[in-house]
Amino acid sequence: MYQLIYWPFLQGRGEFVRLVLEDAEQSYVDVARQPEEQGGGVGAVRAHLYGAGSMPGFAPPYLIDGELKLAQMPVVCAYLAEKHGLCATEIGTRHRAMQLMLTICDAVDATHDLHHPVSTALAYEEQKKEALEATRLFRNHRLSKWLGFFEAVLEETGALHLVGGAHSYVDLAAFQLVAGLRYALPRATAEALEATPRLQDLVAAVAERPAIARYLQSERRIAFNESGIFRHYPELDGPLTDE
Amino acid sequence: MYQLIYWPFLQGRGEFVRLVLEDAEQSYVDVARQPEEQGGGVGAVRAHLYGAGSMPGFAPPYLIDGELKLAQMPVVCAYLAEKHGLCATEIGTRHRAMQLMLTICDAVDATHDLHHPVSTALAYEEQKKEALEATRLFRNHRLSKWLGFFEAVLEETGALHLVGGAHSYVDLAAFQLVAGLRYALPRATAEALEATPRLQDLVAAVAERPAIARYLQSERRIAFNESGIFRHYPELDGPLTDE
Repeated sequence: MYQLIYWPFLQGRGEFVRLVLEDAEQSYVDVARQPEEQGGGVGAVRAHLYGAGSMPGFAPPYLIDGELKLAQMPVVCAYLAEKHGLCATEIGTRHRAMQLMLTICDAVDATHDLHHPVSTALAYEEQKKEALEATRLFRNHRLSKWLGFFEAVLEETGALHLVGGAHSYVDLAAFQLVAGLRYALPRATAEALEATPRLQDLVAAVAERPAIARYLQSERRIAFNESGIFRHYPELDGPLTDE
Repeated sequence: MYQLIYWPFLQGRGEFVRLVLEDAEQSYVDVARQPEEQGGGVGAVRAHLYGAGSMPGFAPPYLIDGELKLAQMPVVCAYLAEKHGLCATEIGTRHRAMQLMLTICDAVDATHDLHHPVSTALAYEEQKKEALEATRLFRNHRLSKWLGFFEAVLEETGALHLVGGAHSYVDLAAFQLVAGLRYALPRATAEALEATPRLQDLVAAVAERPAIARYLQSERRIAFNESGIFRHYPELDGPLTDE
């Protein structure tokens, strides 16, 4: 039985791991979402943070699989995917998958930084002016570039899969990136996706995978909210081109 | 014969790949460092950038190995390491290695952002005030935390290797991180390393590996400079604790 250790009130980076576990139909305990009297709550995450003693890694999400403790979201996803048939085993394809996964992570980081362009030590409200400008630049210059990259990869593969002609954890991560962007910047993202029909189809196909469809309807799927990576502040959204 | 495609005038992220190729004693062409009439120069990099047609990935370094094109520095390093015995093959250890590699990359990114805290679209001189404050905070609060994390990992492994009780690409990357920090922030880094004797020893041991020692003395090793990730602006250095 896998243990996932991540903040209980938000999707965040833990959600990419949850999607792999759910798609692979693996049993897992989402530790911090258990009641506190059963070892859950934020204390369960704090007990594993760097400096707290156990230290599986610098920051959550953490995965515990027997004796093995792993951190770094893309690594945890790749590990689970390899174990459960959601990633090619051939060395070149396997590394190509991780390459694209890390590019998705770069896009996730860039989206996170929109509401915290100055410092994560400050609240959004303390850096709202900079966030408005950063997000305007992102809509005008970066959003289509990120989505267009994955569209170009799909054009090259000729399939509705980013790697190796088969479904993989990279497709799941692309789904989550697009779902998050649609939540955070609905108007700009809808406009940008008009130019990426293959990516739209891939995201729709992932949502229809039976285990994913069940998961998205379940209480296990935390709703997007303003504590996660993808935050909807209406003042940040706008047209894709306003310059 | 491998082809590495990276900017020719700086170490940058390409240097982590060069260290793996050199340590593994593999023949490679550092394409952009060839004369322009032989297909080198920055044009060789530009021809592979996203949007230029060939598109192995979003950004360099790129590795070409026959039909396979890879990008994302930690992925390129891991791929070469697996092929040439610089990484364990067991699935858990292999992913633990990538976990630590990505944490090194996070530290590299954090160091890069010190001289570009506002935007990479602006020159250092245009964001010097913010860089001074960002670097002061980094020296006081982050530098020891990053180095201390790797020291704690070494304490846990009980060896002068970060993963699996054996030399790996992760040790090479740790060497490059520390070398870069020593160049960029010599005073603060020397102070911080006093608390991480194991990490100091690991870095010294890597520098003494025969192939690495030869490489560091060769013309193939580009000197650190103010175009790379690790830049020495004397005004940014200072004591580890000045608050």
